[in-house]
Amino acid sequence: MSLIVMKFGGSSVGSTERMQRVARRIADYKEAGHKVVVVVSAMGDTTDDLIDQSKLLNANPPAREMDMLLTVGEQISIALLSMAIDAIGLKSKSFTGWQAGITTEAVHGKARISDIQPDRIFAALDSGYAAIVAGFQGATEDGDITTLGRGGSDTTAVALAAALKADVCEIYTDVDGIYSTDPRVVKCARKLDEITYDEMLELANLGAAVLHPRAVEYAKNYNVNLVVRSSFTQNEGTSVKEEAVMEQGNAVRGIAFDKNVARISILGVEDIPGVLAKVFGALASNGVDVDIIVQSGTQDGKADFAFTVTLTDKDRAIGIVERIRAEVPYREVTSEENLVKVSIVGAGMVSNPGVAAKMFAAIYEQGISIKLVTTSEIRLSVVIGAEHTQDVVRALHTAYGLDTAEQAFVGGPQDRR
Amino acid sequence: MSLIVMKFGGSSVGSTERMQRVARRIADYKEAGHKVVVVVSAMGDTTDDLIDQSKLLNANPPAREMDMLLTVGEQISIALLSMAIDAIGLKSKSFTGWQAGITTEAVHGKARISDIQPDRIFAALDSGYAAIVAGFQGATEDGDITTLGRGGSDTTAVALAAALKADVCEIYTDVDGIYSTDPRVVKCARKLDEITYDEMLELANLGAAVLHPRAVEYAKNYNVNLVVRSSFTQNEGTSVKEEAVMEQGNAVRGIAFDKNVARISILGVEDIPGVLAKVFGALASNGVDVDIIVQSGTQDGKADFAFTVTLTDKDRAIGIVERIRAEVPYREVTSEENLVKVSIVGAGMVSNPGVAAKMFAAIYEQGISIKLVTTSEIRLSVVIGAEHTQDVVRALHTAYGLDTAEQAFVGGPQDRR
Repeated sequence: MSLIVMKFGGSSVGSTERMQRVARRIADYKEAGHKVVVVVSAMGDTTDDLIDQSKLLNANPPAREMDMLLTVGEQISIALLSMAIDAIGLKSKSFTGWQAGITTEAVHGKARISDIQPDRIFAALDSGYAAIVAGFQGATEDGDITTLGRGGSDTTAVALAAALKADVCEIYTDVDGIYSTDPRVVKCARKLDEITYDEMLELANLGAAVLHPRAVEYAKNYNVNLVVRSSFTQNEGTSVKEEAVMEQGNAVRGIAFDKNVARISILGVEDIPGVLAKVFGALASNGVDVDIIVQSGTQDGKADFAFTVTLTDKDRAIGIVERIRAEVPYREVTSEENLVKVSIVGAGMVSNPGVAAKMFAAIYEQGISIKLVTTSEIRLSVVIGAEHTQDVVRALHTAYGLDTAEQAFVGGPQDRR
Repeated sequence: MSLIVMKFGGSSVGSTERMQRVARRIADYKEAGHKVVVVVSAMGDTTDDLIDQSKLLNANPPAREMDMLLTVGEQISIALLSMAIDAIGLKSKSFTGWQAGITTEAVHGKARISDIQPDRIFAALDSGYAAIVAGFQGATEDGDITTLGRGGSDTTAVALAAALKADVCEIYTDVDGIYSTDPRVVKCARKLDEITYDEMLELANLGAAVLHPRAVEYAKNYNVNLVVRSSFTQNEGTSVKEEAVMEQGNAVRGIAFDKNVARISILGVEDIPGVLAKVFGALASNGVDVDIIVQSGTQDGKADFAFTVTLTDKDRAIGIVERIRAEVPYREVTSEENLVKVSIVGAGMVSNPGVAAKMFAAIYEQGISIKLVTTSEIRLSVVIGAEHTQDVVRALHTAYGLDTAEQAFVGGPQDRR
């Protein structure tokens, strides 16, 4: 008998039929003798509908009231899912965030979980109930209702799994698991059986939006055994854990890419002390998230440096850079769009010196110029023109030996004979 | 500066425009320097929509989960109303039932309030906020979410007014106040300025469904100054209080009628001890509410008695009576539909012996036979054929001097000159 935490997103419970299918999956585990805790998001469009309603009354509603409004989405889901389980003839109890003992910091819209006291969940499990918990929400110590922000239901599931010392935390999504790259771009992308937390973190941050980075971080910190799998099939998913078995001895596990990127260059900056701190301090305090930062060497007391931001932040970032010109004198600020950041990710990269060279060679062979490079222990990212995305991702996928033998034949079944 | 509790029902907040109108009314009080607590119901069809959704998953959903589901209706209302008040530029905080400190007994679907600890409401008021509280809901001591059943929002408002020692509790509805009888039946029905709790209780129980009887009872027990008024006009409403000034020295305040009534007669009952207890005990334990009970004298050791139930309970009541025939021997059970119970209500009736005679005379003059009579200190009810409803209610309204002079002319403006 195991204690299993299952998490279902909004599309998994978006209709009566889907809700019933989820209930059936939960029943399978219960009937097999497991203790089951289920975290569920708001159904389909509920959250968007509520936001639309609020905007009619207040263009800029107070965050506290917005949390009060939006948390009903998950409350509807848990009640209905619990009824669906009861209809199968099994015991089920639903719990809001505060009822599940989830305390958060006193911030609205993006609170972090500060504590979980899951006494009521344990009591329900011990009495033979499935415990259905509202994702994405908690309450402050003073009893105000809060939300955890984007990806909050993943975080609820992982945090509960940690607090309950669950044997596994299964995240059900509309994909089969984590792929070596986006299967829409590379047909022979491979589903990974295992991946490390760190690799997952890099992939999640880089746009493979299956699992929220905060949830992965939480799982890593509390060593939660995480599995990403499909809510529509019975296929095994991808296991996310501390150490993952390397497949085929590949140093690179996956290839991520992100087109939501703009480059800003500040040229001819007076190389006075604290220049970087001033520039990036001003950007941070205005809420602009900077990703890659590259500084080339100085020349005649002047430096050039470049950084990337999301497309939506570009104009704001340029405005901020222009406003601080008096403090940080420079010759010119330029910017560029239509870019893509392509990253190779793998825990084995650090001990594998040839990995980077192979990436540069693969890109060079295609006659593509690299605009920015940045590295971490388990990631290497390049920024190139967006028009090269498919070619480069495919070339890298092949170069690192990630193509599946089976799906590499794109012709059809008869070709495989 | 007063502390005012305002209660708005579902139709008062059923659209964006109505929500904004309610916010404006709250703002008027706040701007006049009052402390304002607002109790609000679910918007328009929200509750019915949620019930429909649940039925698709479970024909007989657990009551605990139904409460979890339905309470989101009020939670949506409080959040949106709070946002509408904020949009006017005034401070507002919403509270669910449990946040408002409303504890109920551990029953789902129709819990009674057992305690209110309104510390957070007081704190919000002291900090200059309007406190917007979800009606119809509370939580058990163990933290399970409960609902108060039909008319629950009225009860929430009155109970909060009592706990907060509010100066007044205003119930906003779609009518101007309490009328001497249904204005759809009697055009010259008069709006009452004042009415006693007891009179209101009799009228509420008798089908003038403006205020829920439980709320009136609560108001009476805690001496809450209650006002019923329209959410669509600025007209003064009807004040419900311990002692009401009698208008024109009328002993009768209002005339109620209720067509949801069936008569059941048990004839030739062996007059053995405990007969009544056995019959009505069996009915009560099967959930049949009995209203009027009349027993005529015994003859030859046999008694006839009759009672009324709602139309929906009629067949079930007859079934129960037939099942206990072995225990309570009787000759025959009969029943009758198409009836109306007409009641005159007035706190002054008890000290006014001619009141009953006048009623019987008015009915007799129309050649109508009375089938049952029952009295309380402040009420006298007769059951007659439903086809006489309009004639009898109009005749009584005139006989007791309740017609308004102005509206008694039904011809049109030119007739009044």
